Amino acid sequence: MFLRNSWYVAGWSHHVEPGALVARTILGERIILYRTSTGKVTALEDRCCHRFAPLSRGRLEGDDIRCMYHGIKFSAEGRCVEIPAQDQIPPGLKVRSYPVVEKDRWVWVWMGAAAAADASLIPTALNHDHPDYHMRTGEMAYEANYQLVHDNLLDLTHLAFVHEKTLGATGDRLWSTVQPMVMALERGVRISRWFPGRSRPRYVNLPAEPSDTWNTFDFVVPGVFLLRSSGHPMGTADAFPEGPDDSLAPRWVVLTSQAVTPCSERKTLYYYSACQRASHADDSFMAIQLGLFQVAFAEDKSMIEAQQGVIDETPGRSLTTLQFDRSITHFRRLMARLMREEQPTPAATAAAE
Amino acid sequence: MFLRNSWYVAGWSHHVEPGALVARTILGERIILYRTSTGKVTALEDRCCHRFAPLSRGRLEGDDIRCMYHGIKFSAEGRCVEIPAQDQIPPGLKVRSYPVVEKDRWVWVWMGAAAAADASLIPTALNHDHPDYHMRTGEMAYEANYQLVHDNLLDLTHLAFVHEKTLGATGDRLWSTVQPMVMALERGVRISRWFPGRSRPRYVNLPAEPSDTWNTFDFVVPGVFLLRSSGHPMGTADAFPEGPDDSLAPRWVVLTSQAVTPCSERKTLYYYSACQRASHADDSFMAIQLGLFQVAFAEDKSMIEAQQGVIDETPGRSLTTLQFDRSITHFRRLMARLMREEQPTPAATAAAE
Amino acid sequence: MFLRNSWYVAGWSHHVEPGALVARTILGERIILYRTSTGKVTALEDRCCHRFAPLSRGRLEGDDIRCMYHGIKFSAEGRCVEIPAQDQIPPGLKVRSYPVVEKDRWVWVWMGAAAAADASLIPTALNHDHPDYHMRTGEMAYEANYQLVHDNLLDLTHLAFVHEKTLGATGDRLWSTVQPMVMALERGVRISRWFPGRSRPRYVNLPAEPSDTWNTFDFVVPGVFLLRSSGHPMGTADAFPEGPDDSLAPRWVVLTSQAVTPCSERKTLYYYSACQRASHADDSFMAIQLGLFQVAFAEDKSMIEAQQGVIDETPGRSLTTLQFDRSITHFRRLMARLMREEQPTPAATAAAE
Repeated sequence: MFLRNSWYVAGWSHHVEPGALVARTILGERIILYRTSTGKVTALEDRCCHRFAPLSRGRLEGDDIRCMYHGIKFSAEGRCVEIPAQDQIPPGLKVRSYPVVEKDRWVWVWMGAAAAADASLIPTALNHDHPDYHMRTGEMAYEANYQLVHDNLLDLTHLAFVHEKTLGATGDRLWSTVQPMVMALERGVRISRWFPGRSRPRYVNLPAEPSDTWNTFDFVVPGVFLLRSSGHPMGTADAFPEGPDDSLAPRWVVLTSQAVTPCSERKTLYYYSACQRASHADDSFMAIQLGLFQVAFAEDKSMIEAQQGVIDETPGRSLTTLQFDRSITHFRRLMARLMREEQPTPAATAAAE
Repeated sequence: MFLRNSWYVAGWSHHVEPGALVARTILGERIILYRTSTGKVTALEDRCCHRFAPLSRGRLEGDDIRCMYHGIKFSAEGRCVEIPAQDQIPPGLKVRSYPVVEKDRWVWVWMGAAAAADASLIPTALNHDHPDYHMRTGEMAYEANYQLVHDNLLDLTHLAFVHEKTLGATGDRLWSTVQPMVMALERGVRISRWFPGRSRPRYVNLPAEPSDTWNTFDFVVPGVFLLRSSGHPMGTADAFPEGPDDSLAPRWVVLTSQAVTPCSERKTLYYYSACQRASHADDSFMAIQLGLFQVAFAEDKSMIEAQQGVIDETPGRSLTTLQFDRSITHFRRLMARLMREEQPTPAATAAAE
Repeated sequence: MFLRNSWYVAGWSHHVEPGALVARTILGERIILYRTSTGKVTALEDRCCHRFAPLSRGRLEGDDIRCMYHGIKFSAEGRCVEIPAQDQIPPGLKVRSYPVVEKDRWVWVWMGAAAAADASLIPTALNHDHPDYHMRTGEMAYEANYQLVHDNLLDLTHLAFVHEKTLGATGDRLWSTVQPMVMALERGVRISRWFPGRSRPRYVNLPAEPSDTWNTFDFVVPGVFLLRSSGHPMGTADAFPEGPDDSLAPRWVVLTSQAVTPCSERKTLYYYSACQRASHADDSFMAIQLGLFQVAFAEDKSMIEAQQGVIDETPGRSLTTLQFDRSITHFRRLMARLMREEQPTPAATAAAE
């Protein structure tokens, strides 16, 4: 089950090169992406309405796309504009077109009713295009349901165990011992904590010097993770227990934005950035950060896919919820409510019949 | 769903070498083929009636076949003739035997009730054994339903797109612009057209010279495609709009016969010949013709399997039928009627109970 | 369908090395095996009760096992003993623990209700640890239901066909012609026969000399095969038609014990020993015996998996039972009765509700 009235990341902007046909499956729907001559990204149903050949095996002709089974051609809006050897085009012959917005170097596709598309609902990635920051990108596929990926991101306790040699290599299981502050957001949850007196991340190009580290992330609908980590002089944690004031100049700032996109019930795509202030990063340090992310996310993938395997083998058994699962529970409830709300009400269904 | 009261090609004659056990699955039934000492092909159910071991792992002993799990032996007619350490053979112990006819270098198996087998229903391949013709053979497996392969063969519009660099490489999308004459046959459909003033096929060993090309094929139950293409002096198309008279001597003649055999709902075998007059072909030109077919049929396979994938992902959605699909519609209806007719009527069922 | 109130072989003792986590699936349940500091084998459900991560991806810490997703720790009895950052452990938080007995170098796990575990039901392997015998071990996985493996072992007629070049290489189809004596046991069946005047097995290191060979095996619940073969002076078969007296000293003795463990409905593990008197065996002859077994059991695997394939393709069709299948029928009925008996009676179910 998926939330349909939402924007999903269909790829990085650089995935959709001019002239290329890019096939994606999102919420179980096959979609094809391409750029028209103006550079705007088009998203169409990847299925010719005639005999269901995939348009991703078709050919771009100007801004149109031609199915290469029997030659039927569609405009960038999905309208049939040519049928070989047939003068009349049946009115209404078309493939579905999806609203697209390109923002923060991500291609966002609206999977619900086109009329309901509201660009203001697109979460804002953290400084993907900011001139003072360096950014690297990655992506990965999980053979697992998107909810397990959400759960994983919502509870960073697992850094102390899954990532004990990578992202959570603190030597003292730090991530499982310092409990965070949890704050409900309108469309998600904010989770923040101080780690006083810690060393800087090893991919930050600054002298070693203990900092009070502030770590805060938002996890928002439909599955976007926005994390900011910053280092401050010792004592800041005590002075600002609720988090650093905007007026403070942190020693270093590291960001990552991550988007979880369900392909199907058992396949999920995952797009992530590694991002930090240019003042304390160069190519080699960015490569270290991105490499660390790649290794760590492969650790997640291995664990989550194993977990999915066990879940699928034991249907009808319920997971146990512990204290540190509260943000998971909060977000699962929020998603469930939004999915419920987008179901037609009995009254609306009756009226439509 | 399959038409059972019909002959299906189970392979080329040369597939069933003397002494060999050849396993096939046709309409979901496992069959084993072998030649008896007289050279006649036997087709038996490939499943020992004892513990269901496949007879294709058995051993040919004279004209009999022995199951190599527990040693039970069957005659070429499928009758049990030996049970180790047991004198009495239960009457009626047997495996199913299928009627077989070898014709035109194809091994035809009747998949319906044996009593209803009628050899006159076997379509005649085009000159497979004709002394004035050279012939080459090929076969391919589709991971798709046989109906999609039928549809593909019934509508050659697709040559202009799927095969735009091979069979349909005319440079002007010829196959999608010249509309054919369609004629209903008792057990199929005949589709014919003139292509006036075209160059000969490149695998015909004759001087380049434009011809009026006549192209006609029959597609008949249960899925046999019989195509004849011939080149005639310019002006013949105008003089004989309904097709060349038998009295005319064509410059060249190219034939192909193709048989579609369903293995299961999602697997289909495809047997095809490349055939042309010996007077304008030698080994090297036959190799060009067969090679062209192999490349082109791989193009079909790729498209049809992709189409099957989309269809399977979107159950409940209906294909759209356009003008050039009329022969597809005609043949689908014919097959549906024949399948309906072979279902027991309610009265017959009641009488049998 | 499985018999649950029974002991199953989960592996050889040497499979569970100190410090190792060994994952097994038995009767569809994921289990993890490890040795505690005393050397005793523990068997736990291989699924953390929190979010269903497999404990086999966890870490052994002393006698406890820690789930490496979120760090929850369990004792060797399956009791939760630690939750990171949570002082209170919910009472009853645990993973299932299975009774284990290590006997005859096999690790036996009780798959039914722990309270019903009765070690006296464990069959005794033949001389696995006997000082006068040499023993080698092997294992193999079948992609087939365990019943087909049982059937195979219960009817050695197949040696004359499946193993005509290995275990049944007598040149005269001996195994299919000499009918055995069949005796019902409380939890199985005993099948015995004389093969008068045969040569010794080729892996027995003794001078060639014909013997009367006595071959007897028990096949007992839940699928354990215990075979003893011995060679006697010519004339013994006539003098002792019911089998050799215990007072007789056989020339040679060869034993094999084999255990069939269902993993799932379509996967079965198979553990076997090759065993013979040390007086007529050395390393090289033991290697010949084990090698012969490996080749022969691969022959079984190939046939049984093919048989399973045919069965799965033709649901609703019934196997035929012949005279030599009587021990199969006997054992299938015994297992069916035991499975029926362990189902809750309607009265017990009502009382429990």
